[in-house]
Amino acid sequence: MDEDRLARVRANMRERGIGQLLVTEPLAIWWLCGYTTEPYERFFGLLVPAEGRCTIFLNRLFPAYEGADLAVVTYDDTDDAVALIARELDSSRPLAVDKELSARWLVPLMERGAAAGFALGSSAVDDARARKDARERELMRAASAVNDEAMAWLAAQARPGVTELEIAEGLLAEYRRLGAEDHSFTPVVSFGANAADPHHEPDGTRLAAGDMVLFDVGCKRQRYCSDMTRTFFTAAPTDRQRAIYEAVQRANEAAEAIVRPGITFAQIDLTARRIIEDAGFGPQFNHRLGHQIGLTDHEPGDVSATHREPVEPGMCFSIEPGIYIPGEIGVRIEDLVIVTEDGCEILNSYPKGIQVIG
Amino acid sequence: MDEDRLARVRANMRERGIGQLLVTEPLAIWWLCGYTTEPYERFFGLLVPAEGRCTIFLNRLFPAYEGADLAVVTYDDTDDAVALIARELDSSRPLAVDKELSARWLVPLMERGAAAGFALGSSAVDDARARKDARERELMRAASAVNDEAMAWLAAQARPGVTELEIAEGLLAEYRRLGAEDHSFTPVVSFGANAADPHHEPDGTRLAAGDMVLFDVGCKRQRYCSDMTRTFFTAAPTDRQRAIYEAVQRANEAAEAIVRPGITFAQIDLTARRIIEDAGFGPQFNHRLGHQIGLTDHEPGDVSATHREPVEPGMCFSIEPGIYIPGEIGVRIEDLVIVTEDGCEILNSYPKGIQVIG
Repeated sequence: MDEDRLARVRANMRERGIGQLLVTEPLAIWWLCGYTTEPYERFFGLLVPAEGRCTIFLNRLFPAYEGADLAVVTYDDTDDAVALIARELDSSRPLAVDKELSARWLVPLMERGAAAGFALGSSAVDDARARKDARERELMRAASAVNDEAMAWLAAQARPGVTELEIAEGLLAEYRRLGAEDHSFTPVVSFGANAADPHHEPDGTRLAAGDMVLFDVGCKRQRYCSDMTRTFFTAAPTDRQRAIYEAVQRANEAAEAIVRPGITFAQIDLTARRIIEDAGFGPQFNHRLGHQIGLTDHEPGDVSATHREPVEPGMCFSIEPGIYIPGEIGVRIEDLVIVTEDGCEILNSYPKGIQVIG
Repeated sequence: MDEDRLARVRANMRERGIGQLLVTEPLAIWWLCGYTTEPYERFFGLLVPAEGRCTIFLNRLFPAYEGADLAVVTYDDTDDAVALIARELDSSRPLAVDKELSARWLVPLMERGAAAGFALGSSAVDDARARKDARERELMRAASAVNDEAMAWLAAQARPGVTELEIAEGLLAEYRRLGAEDHSFTPVVSFGANAADPHHEPDGTRLAAGDMVLFDVGCKRQRYCSDMTRTFFTAAPTDRQRAIYEAVQRANEAAEAIVRPGITFAQIDLTARRIIEDAGFGPQFNHRLGHQIGLTDHEPGDVSATHREPVEPGMCFSIEPGIYIPGEIGVRIEDLVIVTEDGCEILNSYPKGIQVIG
C-alpha cells in the first residue's frame, strides 16, 4: 500500500462519514497498492475500512499479490464470490461503493443485506487521485511530451490521398518508438467535414486538397495519460475558416490564462465559452470545455458550467474549446494543464497558431 | 429493432415477471437494435418495457440513432441524466437492470426511488443471446475460420530468439489481412514455463531451444468472437510432456464428443476433468472447462461443475482443458463448439495432435 495515498483516502472517508469503502476500479486499486489486473467478469476489489488492514479480493487466476500489508481473500470460479465479499463486510455499517462497481455484484450484495445501506463513495478516492503528487506530475509531463512529438509525426502524415484510418493505425508504433505503451483513447483523425463530429472515428476517408485536418490523440506512458488536439489547414484558410480557428484559439488561450487555485471549473468553462459566443458561434460549441485526466483519459470532475468547485494545486485537466458546423468545419484546440500554487503549467508545447501542412 | 430478438427477450421478461428492463451493455443494445457506441463515463441505455415502444438514451455527442422505431431521449453533459432516466421509468413497478450497469447510475436511481425495487435482469437478454440464430452461427464459424488460419501463421513465427511480445504484436495485422477487425481479447503467447500461468501476458521472453509454446488467441470478425488455444513443441516431447499433452487432448476430445442438447454444462466439465484426474493431474487443471462466447469473448453461463443447466441448440462455448505445473509446463487445447439439434459442430479445424515446430 501507498501509505500516503491511503491516508488521504481515509481522511476523505472521515469527512464523508464512510466507515467502509469497496474500491473496484482496477486503476484505483493500482493507485492505492501498486497491484492491478484486468478482471473481466470476475470480481476484483479492495476493501478499505476506516482503520486497520485493507483486504484485496483475487480470483486464483489473477497474478498473486506479493505484499504482506494486505489481507488477501482468494477464490475460484466455482466459489460464491458474493458470499466471500459479504463475509469481510461489517453488516452493521453502511458500505460505500465505487462508481464502477457493476450491478452484477452490487445487487446481490444488497439482496443479501451485506451492509446496513449502500452509497456511492468513489469520490473519497477520486478526489485524492485528482491532486497529483510530485511523482505523478512528472509522469503527466512526460506523457504529454510524447504527445507533442507524436503531433509533429501526425502533421507529417497528412499527404493527399492518405486515409484517416492509415494515419490512426500508424500512430501506435510512433507512440511506442517515443516510449509510450499505448493509446489513452481511440485516436480521432478527421478530414474536412468529418471534424464537425467531435467523436468521429477514423475511417477510409481520403485527404483531399484543401481539407482541414483534426487530430485528437493521447498516449499512456507508465500508465499516465496524455490528450491533445490540433487542427491543421492544407491550404490557405478562407476568411471564415480563419475567424472560426482564431475564435477557438483565443478561447483556449484565455481559459488557460485564468487557471489558478481558487477559480472554479465553471468560471474556466465560461471564459472560453464567452469568447466563442462573442464570435457568434456559441451554439456550435456543444460540449464541456474539458475533463480531468490522470490514470484514465476522463477522470471525474469536468470543466463545465455545472461544476462550481474551485480548482486546486495538482489537478490536471484538458482545455479544449471547439466550433463544429455540420457538413462544413470542425476546429478544436486542446492542451492539458496542471494547476500550480499560483497559476498553471501547460503540459503541451506544440504550436497552436494557424499552420498549413501537407 | 430486431423484432424477433425483442420478442425473445420479452418472452424471457414475462417468464421472470419483469415489467421494465434497462439494458446498458453496449453490445446487448447493438444486438437488439443495431446501434451501439462506446459511452465511456456517459449514460447509454435501452429501456425495454413489457410492451410498447422501447426508449434509447443518447448523449448528444453520440452518433444519432437513425431508425424511427425507438423513442429517443437525448441529453447534454450538463443535463441530469439520472432525472431523464427516472422520467421514463414507471416508478410504481420494479426495474430489472443489466449486470453491467454501474453503481454510478444505479445508486442514484435507487436513492431517487425511480422504481419500486431493483433486481438483476440481464439474463432476459443473455439467455436469448446465448441461442445463436442461423445468421449468428454463420458469423461464429467465419470468425473461427480466421482463427484457424491465424494459428498456422502463429506456429510459423515460433523461431528461436523471437519474443512473446513480437509474435503477439504481429497478430493484429495478420487478423486484418484475414478479414477480421480486431482481437477478441489480449492474445496469450507463452513460452516454456510461462505457459504454466493460464493468464500470462506476452512479455520480452525469448524462445529458447526446446521450449513449448502456447497460443491462446481470438479475433472479432463482424463483431463476433473466436477463441482457440494450441500448445506446440519445438523439440521431440519427453515421456512426461507427452503424457501431459495427451491427457489434455483426450479430455478435450471426450468433452466435445458428448456435447448434445440435454446434457448439462456440468456433465461436460466433469467428462474432461475425470480424464485429467485419472491421468494424475486433477489439481493441475485449476479452472473451469469453458465459457460461452458470442459478441464478447466471455458470455454468461460457463462450462463448469456449478452450472447444472442443459445446453441447447445454438449455444456456443469453449472446451479448454489444461494442465499447469508451475515452473515447468502448461498445456491447454481449446476449440469452440456450437450445439446442434443432435450433437455439436466444432468450429476449429486446426489439428490438435502433437506438433513439433520452429
